[in-house]
Amino acid sequence: MTSVEKARVKAESDARARGYYLHPDPASLQDLLEGLQRNEERYGYPSCPCRLASGVFEVDRDIICPCDYRDPDVEEYGYCYCALYVRKDVSDGETPITPIPERRSSAKQARTYDITAETSTDKHVKATGSIPLTNTLNLWYCKQCGYICFREDSPYLCPICKAKKEMFAPLSITIRG
Amino acid sequence: MTSVEKARVKAESDARARGYYLHPDPASLQDLLEGLQRNEERYGYPSCPCRLASGVFEVDRDIICPCDYRDPDVEEYGYCYCALYVRKDVSDGETPITPIPERRSSAKQARTYDITAETSTDKHVKATGSIPLTNTLNLWYCKQCGYICFREDSPYLCPICKAKKEMFAPLSITIRG
Amino acid sequence: MTSVEKARVKAESDARARGYYLHPDPASLQDLLEGLQRNEERYGYPSCPCRLASGVFEVDRDIICPCDYRDPDVEEYGYCYCALYVRKDVSDGETPITPIPERRSSAKQARTYDITAETSTDKHVKATGSIPLTNTLNLWYCKQCGYICFREDSPYLCPICKAKKEMFAPLSITIRG
Repeated sequence: MTSVEKARVKAESDARARGYYLHPDPASLQDLLEGLQRNEERYGYPSCPCRLASGVFEVDRDIICPCDYRDPDVEEYGYCYCALYVRKDVSDGETPITPIPERRSSAKQARTYDITAETSTDKHVKATGSIPLTNTLNLWYCKQCGYICFREDSPYLCPICKAKKEMFAPLSITIRG
Repeated sequence: MTSVEKARVKAESDARARGYYLHPDPASLQDLLEGLQRNEERYGYPSCPCRLASGVFEVDRDIICPCDYRDPDVEEYGYCYCALYVRKDVSDGETPITPIPERRSSAKQARTYDITAETSTDKHVKATGSIPLTNTLNLWYCKQCGYICFREDSPYLCPICKAKKEMFAPLSITIRG
Repeated sequence: MTSVEKARVKAESDARARGYYLHPDPASLQDLLEGLQRNEERYGYPSCPCRLASGVFEVDRDIICPCDYRDPDVEEYGYCYCALYVRKDVSDGETPITPIPERRSSAKQARTYDITAETSTDKHVKATGSIPLTNTLNLWYCKQCGYICFREDSPYLCPICKAKKEMFAPLSITIRG
């Protein structure tokens, strides 16, 4: 099996596991899988084929496929930013695939541009400022089901019970003397 | 897409993601989805269409669909309390849908009645007592796979490895001086 | 429904939930399900039908089906050690099922032999040494999605985002005075 075929099998399993489908157009799907494979080879992780990655894991973490934005995008629009993962109605051709807004914050995008600018040989590319790359990770818990995670931001959807972002609250460990 | 159609797509995805199916009878399914949608509008969360909700999130947490009792009920009986989510043999008509016992504790049901009694204009409805609404949340871990959550009670089934409730133990943070 | 039929329904749901399939040969599948059922009755948990269990939960924890090694084995080879769970290409007969290496460490296997030797009436079976049965459990977090778990080792694949073992790091709680 070629590495793109492996990427396809992995994406198919992941789609089934979430109740999703893959891009209905075979040529577009092939392009996306090849893009994922290229990023895996270049960065060591399959970052989103439709977004610019920085190559710094801590900065790209949220856009490693399946990205942080997939589930809320599939819920709201029926497909993710790339339309690699789609809902049944999209797979069945009932809902068309048109461009959707970028859910990733401009602050996170700016960090990527800062890093790529620093390493770019193109003099026209300039860093936008001094955005710190190291992020504070926090403990979060889902008030609905109790799922706990240690992340920069709370997730958009709880991976366990599908509760929305607002259902997450910070979890702090208090020591009383 | 209407909001009930959205609820249907969400429930279909969720069913597929768990290996479940939806209620095999189209009319019953439509009733359940409309009930979920009504609760979403009324309370801000899709509480179980077959149970009385209090409107207080902390009290209703365990009956927000998919409720805490869905997975053990599907495992034991083949379908959840509402039969919104069913197992393959039920979907195929091999196992009939008949009423199943309420797995939610009477203490939790009583809290709901207390709240609805307090806000009721019907003089015949009386609060049953002084059941506290604020619950202690605890850290739990699954002894089989290590999943951690922060909840009132341990879950019936581990969402990761499907271990039973008895496999959960409290996780405490000990400080030694 | 017999207990083997129940085991089949549970395995089918679990396979669907992960995007996997069950062993394509009906007779082999039946043997595996009966093996699981026998272990469930003997030990109280469905340990892997293709591996020797000790009967001590803490030692067998990693080989309770679905075992810790299923997901990396399905990813790498297309099927788990028993081939109870297989990938689509294996289910479709495109990839043949041949024996795969045992991913469980020899240290963990040795603990099992020690225990079975101690309780064996066969004088030829001897304990290999004094391998401690109580293991230190640690907090781990996935650097990609933030999933936290409390286990002996970090998982092979993150159950939430499917990140690889290397993406897990120990999570320690620091108290500053």
